[in-house]
Amino acid sequence: MTRILHTLCGADVARPFSPHCWKAVMALAHKGLDFDERPVPFLDVPKIEHGFAKIVPVLRDGDRLVSDSFDIALYLEDAYPDRPTLFNGEGGKAMARFVEGFSQMVIHPAISRIALLDIHATLDAENRAYFRQSREAAFGKTLEQVVIDRDRELKAFPEKLWPLRRMLGHQPFIGGEGPLFADYIVFGALQWVRVTAGVTLFPDDDPVKAWFERCLDLHAARGRHVTAA
Amino acid sequence: MTRILHTLCGADVARPFSPHCWKAVMALAHKGLDFDERPVPFLDVPKIEHGFAKIVPVLRDGDRLVSDSFDIALYLEDAYPDRPTLFNGEGGKAMARFVEGFSQMVIHPAISRIALLDIHATLDAENRAYFRQSREAAFGKTLEQVVIDRDRELKAFPEKLWPLRRMLGHQPFIGGEGPLFADYIVFGALQWVRVTAGVTLFPDDDPVKAWFERCLDLHAARGRHVTAA
Repeated sequence: MTRILHTLCGADVARPFSPHCWKAVMALAHKGLDFDERPVPFLDVPKIEHGFAKIVPVLRDGDRLVSDSFDIALYLEDAYPDRPTLFNGEGGKAMARFVEGFSQMVIHPAISRIALLDIHATLDAENRAYFRQSREAAFGKTLEQVVIDRDRELKAFPEKLWPLRRMLGHQPFIGGEGPLFADYIVFGALQWVRVTAGVTLFPDDDPVKAWFERCLDLHAARGRHVTAA
Repeated sequence: MTRILHTLCGADVARPFSPHCWKAVMALAHKGLDFDERPVPFLDVPKIEHGFAKIVPVLRDGDRLVSDSFDIALYLEDAYPDRPTLFNGEGGKAMARFVEGFSQMVIHPAISRIALLDIHATLDAENRAYFRQSREAAFGKTLEQVVIDRDRELKAFPEKLWPLRRMLGHQPFIGGEGPLFADYIVFGALQWVRVTAGVTLFPDDDPVKAWFERCLDLHAARGRHVTAA
């Protein structure tokens, strides 16, 4: 197969967890494109495609290489216009950037404060050392200090999802009647937690939970096939 | 003129302030449609169009009556397809609901905790009494108690705008290269504060401020023509 998606894993290659990689996986599946997912640990990322990018996901599609999950979605939309759309028009493309802003700046920081040590625990010894060093430098504190208010963060988490919950009063997906790339942006973040940390992010009767379960079922339950931590 | 937009004002009819009404004003202006804006105080809302709706805005377009700002935008998009689009496609229509969820559930509550007494102060005596009674019942506390942490809320406000700020690193409007209804959703909320409360919501070098100023300049500076409090 000439279509390869390079993604990220911990010690277990069967349990890729990166939120950005999950966005790309779901985007490819949404387009109905066959691809070979090749998860690697953090330390092997610089070796992917002879050092094409410092980050995953990286998509090889024949001769074409693309990195960054949003750029991959834009590329797929452009390259495969006859397949199911990922944006449903230019307005959807623009507003997916707003959803990305929400995911990156509201959901991701909260997840770090909840799951950073759990992510660390999924790695092998060598990658743990790298992860600890790089993340502690980025946060300016130890991993243990980042998650020191984990219980409080977990309790506060459902409150942060009100924009999504309110929207779900109007429609089943961020994309409207069906999912679009914007759904995969938020799904990726929550799947990251599901795969790495054995925590409950929302109450059972939360419409956000129902939406997340719908996303897990999409594309032959691609997301659900990786078991929860 | 047969196109009338019923909106909301305080004691000064020249300074309409409702966030939802501003969304509808900007949507009509975006479509390049002439309309007669008729602001009324809270207590006169039930008299609009023989009691058509309990809320403003209410649009009369010939024989057609529409209430609710989002429904007005959907109506205009449908009724005037040859005019500039408010959603730029079905994806944009769906994701505008996410932006609405963010505005309603993150920005609006913060604004209440900042500006509720300022809004009260813009009303005449009779409407003040109504506003106090109805809002105190809704919040379960006095207006003074709602704004008790006003200074802290103001300081925390820029932090809440990170989804927008992050997005503005990619594009000048929520709608992409130009504004769409989603921009007016957030603009309406911030204009509500601008018109009623003499406060600074963001630092001068904040990209969100630059975006808000761009919105104030749109459509012959319709938003800017109402002076700030």
